[in-house]
Amino acid sequence: MLVNGTHYKTIWLENDYTIQVIDQRKLPFHFEVKSLNKVSDIYHSIREMVVRGAPLIGVTASFGMYLAALESQGSNNWYAAMEEAGTYLKSSRPTAINLAFAVDQQLEKVKHATSVEGAIQIARETALNLSEAEIENCKNIGKHGISLIRDIARQKEGNTINILTHCNAGWLACIDYGTATAPIYLAHDEGINIHVWVDETRPRNQGARLTAWELGQHGVPHTVIPDNTGGLLMQKGMVDMVITGSDRTAANGDVANKIGTYLKALAAWDNNVPFYVALPLSTIDLNTQNGVKDIPIEQRNNEEIKYIEGFAENAIQRLRIMPEDSNALNYGFDITPAKYITGLITDKGICKPDEKEIKKLFE
Amino acid sequence: MLVNGTHYKTIWLENDYTIQVIDQRKLPFHFEVKSLNKVSDIYHSIREMVVRGAPLIGVTASFGMYLAALESQGSNNWYAAMEEAGTYLKSSRPTAINLAFAVDQQLEKVKHATSVEGAIQIARETALNLSEAEIENCKNIGKHGISLIRDIARQKEGNTINILTHCNAGWLACIDYGTATAPIYLAHDEGINIHVWVDETRPRNQGARLTAWELGQHGVPHTVIPDNTGGLLMQKGMVDMVITGSDRTAANGDVANKIGTYLKALAAWDNNVPFYVALPLSTIDLNTQNGVKDIPIEQRNNEEIKYIEGFAENAIQRLRIMPEDSNALNYGFDITPAKYITGLITDKGICKPDEKEIKKLFE
Repeated sequence: MLVNGTHYKTIWLENDYTIQVIDQRKLPFHFEVKSLNKVSDIYHSIREMVVRGAPLIGVTASFGMYLAALESQGSNNWYAAMEEAGTYLKSSRPTAINLAFAVDQQLEKVKHATSVEGAIQIARETALNLSEAEIENCKNIGKHGISLIRDIARQKEGNTINILTHCNAGWLACIDYGTATAPIYLAHDEGINIHVWVDETRPRNQGARLTAWELGQHGVPHTVIPDNTGGLLMQKGMVDMVITGSDRTAANGDVANKIGTYLKALAAWDNNVPFYVALPLSTIDLNTQNGVKDIPIEQRNNEEIKYIEGFAENAIQRLRIMPEDSNALNYGFDITPAKYITGLITDKGICKPDEKEIKKLFE
Repeated sequence: MLVNGTHYKTIWLENDYTIQVIDQRKLPFHFEVKSLNKVSDIYHSIREMVVRGAPLIGVTASFGMYLAALESQGSNNWYAAMEEAGTYLKSSRPTAINLAFAVDQQLEKVKHATSVEGAIQIARETALNLSEAEIENCKNIGKHGISLIRDIARQKEGNTINILTHCNAGWLACIDYGTATAPIYLAHDEGINIHVWVDETRPRNQGARLTAWELGQHGVPHTVIPDNTGGLLMQKGMVDMVITGSDRTAANGDVANKIGTYLKALAAWDNNVPFYVALPLSTIDLNTQNGVKDIPIEQRNNEEIKYIEGFAENAIQRLRIMPEDSNALNYGFDITPAKYITGLITDKGICKPDEKEIKKLFE
């Protein structure tokens, strides 16, 4: 999508020896591109969240394995060296499933190379292909989702369509287009009159920092609101549709997503506002039967609640925003029961959030 | 309630010429008591939100009229001087109903004085009586509300009772005890094992700043959570009861309160968690028939969303937390429909949120 009028992806091969990424820790305050030339650069960029979002972490790791192939040129056993690099890269964020997948995919592909030069060539293509596949997934989510927006556009006869989103399921979490934002970008580019309500998404404020920034750079009209506000907007008829992302979706259609998603689904249900979840099929976990009962909820460091990061005097700074002695609790996501979800927008099509319909998509 | 082990109210008469208040702008980072000696001090303390909360604003204005009586001693027409002071004080926060009420009450009372000395005496008594009446209201809310907590305590057989609250409906908004917090303080003081989930309450963070501070000072166990978290906690059975305050309650039982209250009511309803609203009878507006339809929602400055105040390097500072060019929207409160409210805890007793039951309390 656009940044300062130029098309960017979140990661790209700048030249044969250099991967470049957008340093997301500094957004929206500074736009900085970071060059990654070594496997250790890739490791630190994942670990320190220079890059974040499941698809982007995966692609970054895949490019990391390409750099690992380059670095293994001097070694006696290039495959063993790449395996070692893979283990190292996986340890940068142990719970990121896409990371492990990308590393293992690379090791599987290069296994058949007869020389390190061949391995380098294969690893390069594998990383580029994974990147393209992720973009294609998002684009397909967009193509399916835009039909819903076109329907609302017809009903509203050209009046602004207000879409609410939570957290950042945007292109910054992916390579391009995003998941929840893909239908929004395609509709906007098609000339449909769209405005996005951006939940700021406490405690890490990915909505206020990342979603607002990427929508603004691409020229999509939007307004940041506190997480408390969406219910009132729905009561007042100021929301036509909700689209969020998903961290993990169970076989029964229950959706684990950023904490607070459930509250918006309840408000949408209470006000007859369609509530959609956009996701690549790969995040549906058919082995998890019941989302509410079976998906464990990650607890994060409570410093994310006690302190906040922002911008003043041309620098990113940090403040404490509650009493020093008070405790804080930081759950990362919640579960939205399928009954409150209108539909799932996937790269393979839209479906109702129930087991039968979901399984059809996998056929 | 207690601050550093000493009992405080939010406002008191320090001596014949001095009113003292807690400077609430600086909480929880600095605890400072401010002396108000002139009518203009009172005006600025209300306008700049040194004091806030409807009951406290009213009592502050009432003490302001006592200072106005003192200041009118030199004037030709002390009553006219007091009237002028009253108009001036009312302009400090024009929408605060308690403020206008307190000023008019004073002017009504002192009208019958035959001398300025008599007026000073009456104004002093009127302010002290209003302060006592507000404390009594809160105490009575507490006495009624504690019966609900005792019931849960019996069911839970001594296990911790988890109560969730939103915003600050605590003693800092009143003179003592608070509204939503009154049953909590009384239950805690009675030895019932209570823990409070404190919604941080974006965008002004009154929960994280004020409620957490006052509970902590009084020794009530509590945990600050992002506004997004309450739904998950209810899903997980970690909330036994919700108690919030109310800015205004309609005849049909719909409750206007701090933005985000409605979302918690929906989650409570979805998880069978009792949802109570604590309020003095004076905030029920029988002339407003339907809360959802008829109560207008105040829009506030969007700088409250774009910037946040916190503490670093021993000073209160401000940071920008979203893109400079993005828009933000700041609604002050939302309306919780009566059907999602278990009951109203008032100074005259507990009732269902419907017109018949509410009107009985006024008999």
